[in-house]
Parts: sequence; structure tokens; C-alpha cells
Amino acid sequence: MTDETDRKPAPGASTNRRRFLTGTLAGGAAIAASGGEAFAQRKRKPIGPNPDNQPPNVPEWSKVLGDGVASHPYGKPSKFEAHVVRRDVEWLTASRESSINFTPLHELDGIITPNGLCFERHHGGAAVVSPFDHRLIIHGLVDKPLIFSMDDIKRFPRTNRVHFLECAANSGMEWRGAQLNGCQFTHGMIHNVMYTGVLLKDLLNEAGLKPTAKWLQVEGADSSGMNRSLPIEKALDDCLIAFKMNGEALRTEQGYPLRLVVPGWEGNLWVKWIRRIEVGDKPWFAREETSKYTDLMSDGRSRRYTFVMDAKSVVTNPSPQAPFTAKGRNVLTGVAWSGRGHITRVDVTLDGGRNWREARIDGPVLDRSMTRFYVDFDWAGNELLIQSRAHDSTGYVQPTKQELRAVRGVNNIYHNNGIQTWLVRANGETENVEIS
Amino acid sequence: MTDETDRKPAPGASTNRRRFLTGTLAGGAAIAASGGEAFAQRKRKPIGPNPDNQPPNVPEWSKVLGDGVASHPYGKPSKFEAHVVRRDVEWLTASRESSINFTPLHELDGIITPNGLCFERHHGGAAVVSPFDHRLIIHGLVDKPLIFSMDDIKRFPRTNRVHFLECAANSGMEWRGAQLNGCQFTHGMIHNVMYTGVLLKDLLNEAGLKPTAKWLQVEGADSSGMNRSLPIEKALDDCLIAFKMNGEALRTEQGYPLRLVVPGWEGNLWVKWIRRIEVGDKPWFAREETSKYTDLMSDGRSRRYTFVMDAKSVVTNPSPQAPFTAKGRNVLTGVAWSGRGHITRVDVTLDGGRNWREARIDGPVLDRSMTRFYVDFDWAGNELLIQSRAHDSTGYVQPTKQELRAVRGVNNIYHNNGIQTWLVRANGETENVEIS
Repeated sequence: MTDETDRKPAPGASTNRRRFLTGTLAGGAAIAASGGEAFAQRKRKPIGPNPDNQPPNVPEWSKVLGDGVASHPYGKPSKFEAHVVRRDVEWLTASRESSINFTPLHELDGIITPNGLCFERHHGGAAVVSPFDHRLIIHGLVDKPLIFSMDDIKRFPRTNRVHFLECAANSGMEWRGAQLNGCQFTHGMIHNVMYTGVLLKDLLNEAGLKPTAKWLQVEGADSSGMNRSLPIEKALDDCLIAFKMNGEALRTEQGYPLRLVVPGWEGNLWVKWIRRIEVGDKPWFAREETSKYTDLMSDGRSRRYTFVMDAKSVVTNPSPQAPFTAKGRNVLTGVAWSGRGHITRVDVTLDGGRNWREARIDGPVLDRSMTRFYVDFDWAGNELLIQSRAHDSTGYVQPTKQELRAVRGVNNIYHNNGIQTWLVRANGETENVEIS
Repeated sequence: MTDETDRKPAPGASTNRRRFLTGTLAGGAAIAASGGEAFAQRKRKPIGPNPDNQPPNVPEWSKVLGDGVASHPYGKPSKFEAHVVRRDVEWLTASRESSINFTPLHELDGIITPNGLCFERHHGGAAVVSPFDHRLIIHGLVDKPLIFSMDDIKRFPRTNRVHFLECAANSGMEWRGAQLNGCQFTHGMIHNVMYTGVLLKDLLNEAGLKPTAKWLQVEGADSSGMNRSLPIEKALDDCLIAFKMNGEALRTEQGYPLRLVVPGWEGNLWVKWIRRIEVGDKPWFAREETSKYTDLMSDGRSRRYTFVMDAKSVVTNPSPQAPFTAKGRNVLTGVAWSGRGHITRVDVTLDGGRNWREARIDGPVLDRSMTRFYVDFDWAGNELLIQSRAHDSTGYVQPTKQELRAVRGVNNIYHNNGIQTWLVRANGETENVEIS
């Protein structure tokens, strides 16, 4: 997470959650209006019969001309969707320039995150970089140090890949128990887009790696000069230098005009506004891989260079921000992902793990991409303890939080891929809880 | 296309093109600045050497704090991308409410069209429909006529599909010869997104089809009451009632909150703001399937109910709006699609059809979805006549415009999937031309 978070005393789970709820209600009236006691125990109105077998009355909006084309040359969402935004948690960080906001996972479906809703994590704010003047340099242990303009890069062979980007600190506050009340906040430091870029390998080969080359230092053009060490094997395997996301240019806050894509590895490595690649023979022990982005274990030691994001999943609906609103037919849905391959199966339990059923996976199942799952079922209005459990193509199964804590204790921040639990009360209200 | 277009005298190709060029230059200074004589014959500066093997000077934008998170809860493109917008052609239609704008294909890569750039085609403007009050009715030859709220629909099992939507009139002006100078205008009535929705089949089954049911009338809630006839076989096969595109709610101009998805079939059938489905035993012969959206043949007769969009492709770069800017290494790219299956191969010629090479397909190849192709090559600065030719999984090969005109003459508007030609001059300038 951030320096500021680390220094603050850890508030108790319930205090924390109450604070959070207040924040949410202030920021998103639409959520408050649709949740909670208001619809408690309401029996769903059945799909309406239409006894006259006739069309309904013509609604008002059918009687007026709508907006013509090109009123908005670059379109934006409907006014009825104004509550579907990235949100932050105000008390989490001291400044907005080194902070986080969260993808509204509970409002999305399918596997593509729209560019406008991809979470942000900056260390010195979002740099505004001119594509005309931006340069990427490769230097160090190379035969031919090079400087690339954007035009130069776009002339290398391009490739398109759909990948999730997850911050290593996603779900980080959950190490000490159920905290934030909504999957946007517990799991929203992730997005999944189609990147277009060139292989980092091709740029490195253009410069010519010396035999001693073992690590890269990758550095952004933002004011924090975000830098990390990247093993040469990964750089030569599948990393991209990307300039487009979901078809169009990268967004400013996602590194426009150029970012590093490191499939399956923690988001902090995906350097935005990338301007410098230094080739060396050992890692740099940068601030962001020593004092931060290391895994504190239960014995007080830290693991470093733990790059891969292991298999994980979360039920996005129902969830605290998006509860069921009535009994009967309902769609439970969520997303699963793995940094080691593709998702092969997702299990879902409705009773806290006593019984599991295999979820229905729908939509493209791609390598190191979010995968969408569903459970279509009738809710009797009973209390539910909902969990999901991802399996990936290496045979790995998503662990419980208890299993993770046995190894890493509760003071860790990063790489929490434990199973998440939502309590659905009989009135539909849904909470983030822990079960032992 | 539109009524207004049909009634206007057909301007000669070159007049038409000149008018178009003027429009483009006025509307998009960035295009003008990067194209044309300015860079003619310029030899590309090689990728810069970096003799000191040192990082470059720190740019100005690295010295200031960037914007913090959540300044824009719903993000938007970089200011440097302001020229990447849908564009219209002012003289094409008399009103903006019954008009068209075009997807900027030459600015995109990969296969996903961002929601903000999906072309618009309205017959009575974009209706603003409340999701709380919107209803979808199914009536006619059914056992149990029904009225669905949005909540009702979202409780049916969901599915996610990536499909292209192409207006039947896309490339329609090209029947008479090369006209508009840019693939945005010749081919930009297409977009490709991931839809989330429910199967139309499931809603029809809920209502219960009578044995005599053969056709549906599908009708929108816009002021034009856009309606079309749809064969029951297609409705029961793969049609969706969609509420999300690329993960988020449909955009207003794409039918928020609900649209019909008719995979592989002409866009006019994909009724937006869908409010009514009437089940009958014969087609309705609606205005949009009799006086419009029929295929005028060379013998003066018209074919009707020609639903499927056949295999087609276009080179998006280079193209008149996005010419090559220098000799040497260049990336040629484009998109291909077929309404009958998936793309199996794309051929590209650089010399007007004397020699063809197989393009490199990259990224997901999905059923009735746009597919991205590339040709990486060195341009010697010679004149090029560039064409692409799509093959689909049925064995169909994209025809030439001449082959199509032999059957349908030049007065047709719809279903022009002929091979497109770009002339690249030695100075890089690129034009829409025809070769015989």
C-alpha cells in the first residue's frame, strides 16, 4: 500500500468498516438507495403478465427527438450511470499524488475493463508526457545504446494481448481480517484490458544484449521516477512496451504514451510513462523493491522479488455495494485470474465452504486474463456465506486467508490472494466477514 | 445510408473527395500536420544512437507532480489524442438526428473499439431512456405475453460475446467508384465490442412460442420507432438482449439500457433501446426493410432480407488519414471480419494485385469478430497500390468491387464488401483509388 498507511495505527475491523460505510454513502447515493433494509424480505414481483397481449403505452422518451450524432465526438456514459466511477478511500493516504483509487468491479461484467474505469496508483501523480517529445532509452550492458521516439517504437512488429494488471497490495488490508465493505475496495486494484505494443525482446535485440546482461532497471518519466528491477528472462519472454489499451492510446493515468506490460506479475513492475531501460548484471534494490513491495513473513523476515500474482477470485455480485434485491431467481457472478496461466475452474460455496459447486465460466478464457464466472440460482431468502475459489492451469488452487496467515502472519501488505467471504443476510444486506 | 443521400445527385468522385479533404483538414489539424508534402521523401532518422551510454536529460514533466488520483473518477483520453474522435460528413444528411458518424479505424489497433469511439447511426436521435422505467414487452404468438423490467432481464443467465456490428451501408458510397478519402469514412460504420447480455431464446421460451411463430418484429423506444423483421431461427440461435458493452453499461447512443445483438447480421437489425418484440408468422415489410436496406441489383430489381454481412477487410494504416511518414521499416495493419464465421486468412498486395502475401494475424481470432492483421515490411519509397483480401471459415474469399458491380450495378447502397485500394505515392500521400 503506501507509506502513509503503514505509519497509521491499524484501526479495528469494525471501526474501519463503519468509517468506510460512511464514506461510501456520502460518495454514492445510488448505492445507498438500492441496498439495505428498504427492500428487506421483499418478494420479487413476478415478470409482469400482459393480459391484453398488446404493446405497452408509448413512453415519453419515444415522443421526442434524441440527440443527433457527433454531439459528443468522444462519447461518455449515460447520466444514469454516474455512480459507476473509480472511488478512493480518503483516509488511506495523505496526498492524492501518491495514492490509489479502485475499479468498480461490482458494476462491471464480461472481462474487459473500460479505460475510464481502470484503477489508478501513482507515486508522484499522473505525468503529462508529450508523445512528440517522449523518448525511451536503452543503455547499460548493450552493444548499441539506443534512443527511441514513439514513431520508432511503432515500426516494430506489434502484438495484442489481454492481461490483468493487479497491484501487489490489492486486498492488502484484509490480512488483519475483514475490513473494507465492498469488492471495489477489497479487490478493485485490478483491471483487464487488451494491450497493443511491441515485444520488449525486439527492442533489446535491436540494442544487442551483452552476455553479462541479467537484470533490467525500468524507470518511468513521472516525478517519482518509479523504478524497479526486472529479470532478463522475463523481459525476453513476454513483456510488451505498450502504446494502446482497448484499441486506443493509453490513458494519461495508465502511462501515456508508453508503459511496460509484465504479464502475470505485480502491477508495480508495469512501469508507466517508461523512459529508461538500463541493462545490468544484478538487481538494483530500488526503494520500491526493498522498503516496499516485499512480503513480510510471520517470522519477521521479508521475501523480496516475489513477482507473480497467484490465482485469485472474487464474487462481485452479490457484494456489499451490490446486494441481491429480492428472493427467487438471481445471478451470482465474479472474476478469477492467475499470473501463472489461465483459469481452468472456479468453485463457489453459498454456505461458507460446506458445499461447493462448479461455477459456469463464460466468455473468452485467456492466458493471464480475468475470467468471468456465474452461478444461476434461486435464493430462498436464507442467510448465505458466499466464497469463490479459483483453479489455474498449473493445478494451483486459491488458498484460504487462514492458510496464508499461517505462513505470512497478519502484518504483511502484499500478495493476499486468499478466499474472500461475503455474508448475505436474510434482508439482502451483504457484508465483508471472516469465517474460521 | 439515408433518405437525404439518396435524393442528392451523386457527385463525381474527385469533387466529392476534394470536399471531403477540406472537411477533414478543418476538423482535424493533427492529421493535416502529419501528412502530405511536409514529410515527402524525407529519409527516416535512424533510431538514435546514445554514444555516452547514459540516460537522457530529465524531461520537464518529470520535475513536477502530476494529477492525483480521482481527479477524474471516470477517465478520459489524453489531451494529445483530441483528434481521435468519431467524425461525420456534413453534406451527407440533412439533419443530425437521422445521420451517421464514423469510427476512426485508422487511429485504433487490436480488435476492441473503445465505447466512446463506436460509430453512431440514428433514425430519430439517441433516445434518453430511464433504466428504472424501461420495459421490454414480448407479445403476439406466445402462450404468455410478458413485460420485463431491467432487473427481470438481468436475472436470466448471462453470456459474453465479442462481435462486430457493421451498418449495411458501410462503404455504400464506394459502389460508384472511389469516393471518400479515409478508411474512417469508407469503412468506419463498424465497431467491435464485448457484449454482456442474455439469450433472446431464453426470454422467448419464458413467454412460450406458439407453433405458428415464424418471425419477430423488433422495435426500439427511439422517436423513429425503429423496427425490423427477424426470422425466428436466428432469434433462437445466437441473438442476445445486451445491457453491457466492453464491461460497462451500454452507451446512450448504442441503445442504453438495452439493445438487440444479431451476430454477423447487418447493423440495422441490432435494434437499440429495444422495447417490443412481437411474435408473428410472416415478416412485417417495415419501411427499413422495403424502401431501405434492400439490395438494388443491376437489372433494377431489389433483393430483400439480405441479412448477413459477408467477409470484408480494410487496411487502416497506411490510409489517406494515416499515411506512412518515412521510408524504411513500416507496419501495415488492418482489420478483417465475416458475418458467417471467423477469419482464417488475410492476403495483402502492395502492387495492385500482381503479388499477394499472407498477412500476419495477431490477437484473438473470434467468431464474427474483427480480426487484426499486420504486414511488417521495408518501404523503399516507391508507389504502392495496397489491397487486402479476407478469407473466412466457410471458404469464402472477399470479392473485388468489379465482381460485385457485375451483379449489382452501381446504384446499390448496401452490402459493399469489395476489396478496397489505397494508392501510396512516393511522397507518402495516400489516396482512395480504383484499379480495373
